[in-house]
Amino acid sequence: MPDRMPSLSRRGLVGGASLLLAAGPAAAAAPPPTPADIGNVQGGRVTFPNWKGEADRPSPPPPNPMPPGERVGFAIVGLGRLSLEELLPAFAECKQARPVALVSGTPDKLKAVGAQYGIKPEALYSYADFDRIAENPEVKVVYIVLPNGLHHEYVLRAARAGKHVLCEKPMANTSAEAREMVAACRDARVKLMIAYRCQYEPYNRRATALLRDGGLGAARFMEASNTQVQGEVPQWRFSKALAGGGALPDIGLYCLNAARFYSGEEPVEVFARIHNTPDDPRYREVEESIAFMLRFPSGLMANCAASYGAHESKDMRVRLEKGWIDVENAFAYQGQSMRVATRDGKAEAIRELRLGQKNQFAAEIDHMAQCVLQDRVPRTPGEEGLQDQVIMEALYRSAETGAAVALPAVEGRDTTRGPALEEEE
Amino acid sequence: MPDRMPSLSRRGLVGGASLLLAAGPAAAAAPPPTPADIGNVQGGRVTFPNWKGEADRPSPPPPNPMPPGERVGFAIVGLGRLSLEELLPAFAECKQARPVALVSGTPDKLKAVGAQYGIKPEALYSYADFDRIAENPEVKVVYIVLPNGLHHEYVLRAARAGKHVLCEKPMANTSAEAREMVAACRDARVKLMIAYRCQYEPYNRRATALLRDGGLGAARFMEASNTQVQGEVPQWRFSKALAGGGALPDIGLYCLNAARFYSGEEPVEVFARIHNTPDDPRYREVEESIAFMLRFPSGLMANCAASYGAHESKDMRVRLEKGWIDVENAFAYQGQSMRVATRDGKAEAIRELRLGQKNQFAAEIDHMAQCVLQDRVPRTPGEEGLQDQVIMEALYRSAETGAAVALPAVEGRDTTRGPALEEEE
Repeated sequence: MPDRMPSLSRRGLVGGASLLLAAGPAAAAAPPPTPADIGNVQGGRVTFPNWKGEADRPSPPPPNPMPPGERVGFAIVGLGRLSLEELLPAFAECKQARPVALVSGTPDKLKAVGAQYGIKPEALYSYADFDRIAENPEVKVVYIVLPNGLHHEYVLRAARAGKHVLCEKPMANTSAEAREMVAACRDARVKLMIAYRCQYEPYNRRATALLRDGGLGAARFMEASNTQVQGEVPQWRFSKALAGGGALPDIGLYCLNAARFYSGEEPVEVFARIHNTPDDPRYREVEESIAFMLRFPSGLMANCAASYGAHESKDMRVRLEKGWIDVENAFAYQGQSMRVATRDGKAEAIRELRLGQKNQFAAEIDHMAQCVLQDRVPRTPGEEGLQDQVIMEALYRSAETGAAVALPAVEGRDTTRGPALEEEE
Repeated sequence: MPDRMPSLSRRGLVGGASLLLAAGPAAAAAPPPTPADIGNVQGGRVTFPNWKGEADRPSPPPPNPMPPGERVGFAIVGLGRLSLEELLPAFAECKQARPVALVSGTPDKLKAVGAQYGIKPEALYSYADFDRIAENPEVKVVYIVLPNGLHHEYVLRAARAGKHVLCEKPMANTSAEAREMVAACRDARVKLMIAYRCQYEPYNRRATALLRDGGLGAARFMEASNTQVQGEVPQWRFSKALAGGGALPDIGLYCLNAARFYSGEEPVEVFARIHNTPDDPRYREVEESIAFMLRFPSGLMANCAASYGAHESKDMRVRLEKGWIDVENAFAYQGQSMRVATRDGKAEAIRELRLGQKNQFAAEIDHMAQCVLQDRVPRTPGEEGLQDQVIMEALYRSAETGAAVALPAVEGRDTTRGPALEEEE
């Protein structure tokens, strides 16, 4: 049985807020607390029975965090913008993961951030020290948040250290690197997950479920865009060696990956066109804008666009036989919204779906922790990243030649892969 | 001076509605009518001074219709769905045009529709009779609303009859036909206009003005879709001979034409992919779905999608350097809406623009009437239709070969063409 609420004084509660209650007929004989008021504890978890009527959605259960000492320990490699602005704050919303080590090449930053997040001083590593992480038993997962061109080296070193690896996208600069990363983790018997956060984000998952459910008929087209305006300040994203490419691997990859995971299909042909603003020094080595088309076996075609030179828009649209799905801000860190259109008799019905807020970074990190705890294969394994690398190389080849590029069938995959939607909380 | 309003009785107005007024202090000494109340007449036109405050948009002026007998007379050729559902009703909102003749192959329909719209019995023609239209001086313009495959023949016959021609889109089945149509009208010294209604529709025009204005920077991408679900009932749209093609000329053309007229540029390269549902008898001769990409000289790229097998969506999106423009239902008969996104300090600002309602068919028909009255070249002349035919042929070639198709520079056109936005009322 749950514990009790403080009982009402027979003379009514003290203070102004109680006047109304005290004046009412119930004040003299307060009802006993109900489970709806105080909840239940079962198996160490507190839950509350639904207190809402049928016409309203129930409030989600309270989080069920593991005790801090039992959570899976992560080492964050690279203290750039993403780690500081998104990932480390997201750990506060994680339920199975916690940060236990940091790796950075900037000692004062390492010290400051270590203090902010309560990391033990002996778990603050420089890149030269990185391999010593093998000796830290608290570190179960190494999360690689470095410039793309360094992913290959650090994933291999993490695997050699015997640690599971969560690696930011794009997985690597080339498909050859990606293949080596998959093989290295397999040989070292550690898990490799690629941080495709949108596959853990509720709006993208709901849209995928709607598409796969079949109620809206065949999917005919997707329109995916991921654009933003890059500043002129020097940054690693303009270096081919560090970034592997420009708008395509950095942000166009979201369009490509979403087209694949929404549909559960693999493209059989791609076409791409690149445009760089002439004489812009930022785009000497990497592309500014890319438009591309993917053709899937079912006949579905995806039109995609990514640019470093267009105002932010990160939207995914699906045109199906019997309706359409618009996910605005699909690829953004936050601000997703979703509309679904279908016929309603003689009217066109546009439903806006409002899902609960959820930190997609926390969901992604917790998924990796769960996979470690339960010894499961991550939903977005290294092979998922490798396939995107293969397709991006085909896109660059198409942009160079001006011809469509056919893609070989990928062995060991089928058209039913993708996020396991039934797992959603 | 304008005429007077009925003056207030010194005892107050008669009837229940007057009680409040009669009880007020003003009833005994009513103010004289003002121009804001009763308007002004100048040059045969009634106008009202703006009665709204600065914070509200003024109401538009009352229409300024020409007396019926002075309007430009139109013969409507073909009494199909478009004529009956949209065009003939739209004449009621026209100010310079009126229907004076009908042409149909179905005598009872001809008679019924003639009666509905007050057409003189002697101005009801069969197709066999069509050339007799030359002898009807009331007919100044012939509006061809036939299946695409008949446009060529009837435009030539109308030109031979010495009549100006308004022709539905697509202009023809082939660019060769289109060239002959342009030449025939030039030789006969009659005007030829193609019915690109969206170029006369306020939301599309406003979006074009925003793009051309330059305040949002360079346009990087367009995403245009025009999809609908075709029934299985037999219809001319499934016949290659009558329709010239499937989703591309019928609805994909809107995407193509909008990409050209929004940008004012002509594509230098196109790529397309077609998909038909296997074994669907409707798509034996014409395509069901087409995705295509247009590359423009400025670097702008347009991703377009059209299908007869996807739930209706008729949207145009422009991604620019400093903002984006979404026109939902851009290509629909009605229901347009428009949002413009830009940065506002640390916020993202999404402005929804609500323009006045305007019948785009009436605007288009009146434009042709104006061109006749003022001896001007229509904003969407035969050459505009011809250019789309050339591009559609390149798109089909690309879909056949799987390679991008380069387009020759079009002589006599420049990158500043497009709707004359300053003309907008």
